[in-house]
Amino acid sequence: MVDATGREAVYLDHAATTPLRPEARAALLAELDLVGNPSSQHSAGRRARRVVEESRESIAIALGVRAGDVVFTSGGTEADNLAVLGLYRARRSEDPRRTRVIASAVEHHAVLDPVDWLGEHEGAEISWLPVDDVGRVDLAWLKAELDEHADEVALVTVMWANNEIGTVQPVAEVATLCADRGIPFHSDAVQAVGSLEVDASVVDSLALSGHKFGAPVGVGALVLRRGLSPVPLVHGGGQEREIRSGTVDAAGIASLAAALTASMADFDVRTARIARLRDDLVAHVLATVDGVSRNGDPSCSLPGIAHLSFEGCEGDSLLLLLDAAGVECSRGSACSAGVPQPSHVMLALGVEPVAARGSLRLSLGWSSTDDDVARLVEALPAVVARARRAGVGR
Amino acid sequence: MVDATGREAVYLDHAATTPLRPEARAALLAELDLVGNPSSQHSAGRRARRVVEESRESIAIALGVRAGDVVFTSGGTEADNLAVLGLYRARRSEDPRRTRVIASAVEHHAVLDPVDWLGEHEGAEISWLPVDDVGRVDLAWLKAELDEHADEVALVTVMWANNEIGTVQPVAEVATLCADRGIPFHSDAVQAVGSLEVDASVVDSLALSGHKFGAPVGVGALVLRRGLSPVPLVHGGGQEREIRSGTVDAAGIASLAAALTASMADFDVRTARIARLRDDLVAHVLATVDGVSRNGDPSCSLPGIAHLSFEGCEGDSLLLLLDAAGVECSRGSACSAGVPQPSHVMLALGVEPVAARGSLRLSLGWSSTDDDVARLVEALPAVVARARRAGVGR
Repeated sequence: MVDATGREAVYLDHAATTPLRPEARAALLAELDLVGNPSSQHSAGRRARRVVEESRESIAIALGVRAGDVVFTSGGTEADNLAVLGLYRARRSEDPRRTRVIASAVEHHAVLDPVDWLGEHEGAEISWLPVDDVGRVDLAWLKAELDEHADEVALVTVMWANNEIGTVQPVAEVATLCADRGIPFHSDAVQAVGSLEVDASVVDSLALSGHKFGAPVGVGALVLRRGLSPVPLVHGGGQEREIRSGTVDAAGIASLAAALTASMADFDVRTARIARLRDDLVAHVLATVDGVSRNGDPSCSLPGIAHLSFEGCEGDSLLLLLDAAGVECSRGSACSAGVPQPSHVMLALGVEPVAARGSLRLSLGWSSTDDDVARLVEALPAVVARARRAGVGR
Repeated sequence: MVDATGREAVYLDHAATTPLRPEARAALLAELDLVGNPSSQHSAGRRARRVVEESRESIAIALGVRAGDVVFTSGGTEADNLAVLGLYRARRSEDPRRTRVIASAVEHHAVLDPVDWLGEHEGAEISWLPVDDVGRVDLAWLKAELDEHADEVALVTVMWANNEIGTVQPVAEVATLCADRGIPFHSDAVQAVGSLEVDASVVDSLALSGHKFGAPVGVGALVLRRGLSPVPLVHGGGQEREIRSGTVDAAGIASLAAALTASMADFDVRTARIARLRDDLVAHVLATVDGVSRNGDPSCSLPGIAHLSFEGCEGDSLLLLLDAAGVECSRGSACSAGVPQPSHVMLALGVEPVAARGSLRLSLGWSSTDDDVARLVEALPAVVARARRAGVGR
């Protein structure tokens, strides 16, 4: 987008969706210009099938699992729902005592909402795993809960890294606690894949979404340990191990694999550069604006996320004033944009509701530049001053 | 694909998936080169949201409904499942007596399989609506069933046109029978949209899939009359009227709308041309090969489908020999390709299992040419002769 002065807007909302990477664009176009349903038996179909299976293989290698573990979906929300709803239903049908779901209090709505659904409609008891003031889950609490209810737990779900504040969870420790008790552990890694080193073999189930790391919207995957059979959400042609029916999207999948491969190829350089930009951004903002605090875990966080709270103003005011100044960012999750309530993530950290509402998520990605940071830093003091004059609503 | 002599293969499997139309390709690329999550509040997000809403409007106009009736999905299978599973669950939860599903015996697996699921796992009683020998549903039977069980019927589902044999169903008559009794009627119009005049306002719920009419794989829609609230399959950000959560795929949706608009613009010329090619194909095959019969309803059929049975051979042999000769087609549905059983559609017509297996679906689309037909007609006699020497397996 172009701002009032004719400059391209600065995009600092990569956590909501990041631009298509050139490698992903090329892979998509190469496949779009051909035809063939990967389920068809003729040459065109078999060619499309090969593209899908080679993509599955390269995704599996990037994530440290076997090709057969990768189930393609329409994105992260579907993958998370398939894991949460599907594993709960399967585990409970194997043993009716298994009615408990343990979920972190800071999950994305793609996990939170199916968990709530199970509680409200399918007889689940939900144990909300608390987090500390930087958003890390309480492992001692988890261990105690697992010990008390081991036979009743259908699944545990803890995200790899938080989409609002960026905190990375102790996934390996959670995985060990679950594995020791034979309980499936799902991790929503939608923000993590491409930005952190993700070894999917440590968990039983993992969700990823292409458009968070440079593939198009509309394609993602559930990585699922062999032997786990979630009850499908949709039934039909039996594609994807009978777990996810529907015509297999060869072009989207090729693009997903290309984006992930590109993310692995430039991983160290890119993530170090993004983290440096993010650190610059935070340092400049703290130096130029009073009454700002940073949320999340500075020692263990996604490289691209700076989540900041500004005393005495509304996040929505900041967001809209920044947008008018040519800087695009968000208050928290795009999936709850426009909702006036404070974020459940901020409340879980113990932040007061009014303070929680005065927050911004500034998120950087592969195409971010020093100029993006400079323009934010240039615009922010006046924006904050103006938002503070408007004050805090009720 | 290129055949052994270096020629491009002839693609006669448009019912499985049809090439991307140039208009859809252009719309996809225009959107892919921009960024913005349609749920974001900043300018880039609002721009993407406008693309989605303008696309929704143009799709609604093309189908004779209101924009608010269009719910975007990842494709036809998801749309059919959302309707079948979602409406059953909603209707039954309103009134526990509603446990009956009436479904035609010739539905695609995207409807058949969720219907079976409801029968096997959710207490549904299934009434399979029979068809005559050309595949049209028995309206008198439907009326009697509705009269006998009016209070118990959760929904009726009858496809707009059959994906294997091409028969068009008396949708308006089914709709009237259902509307008179206040029972929701879903129609799987995946093969119909773009190929027939589809007025979605006559039904309560309708599924469509982009890649059947020149949009990419991975995007489709459920058209849903206001007031119907199927229980969602996935829960999350609350996108698409809280019926279908997940990041909204602006690029795919723009491409879907462009493909549908293009299909409307050239509808008369294109469908007449395809029907003429199909009639030429059938006439030439009947004139040059013995022991061939045509299936479906010649008086009321999809323009692009010729479904033919060949005495004394296996459809799979024909398919593979034709493929080797550079002609790509299918035996029936791509979604059950490779399954050795005869098609449930052919069995519903009353065809014997062995005869049912000796069938081919030759399907044409927007890019089909006279040369495609000529090359099939040239290749087929030798292929049939060879397949007949191989005979019919057990």
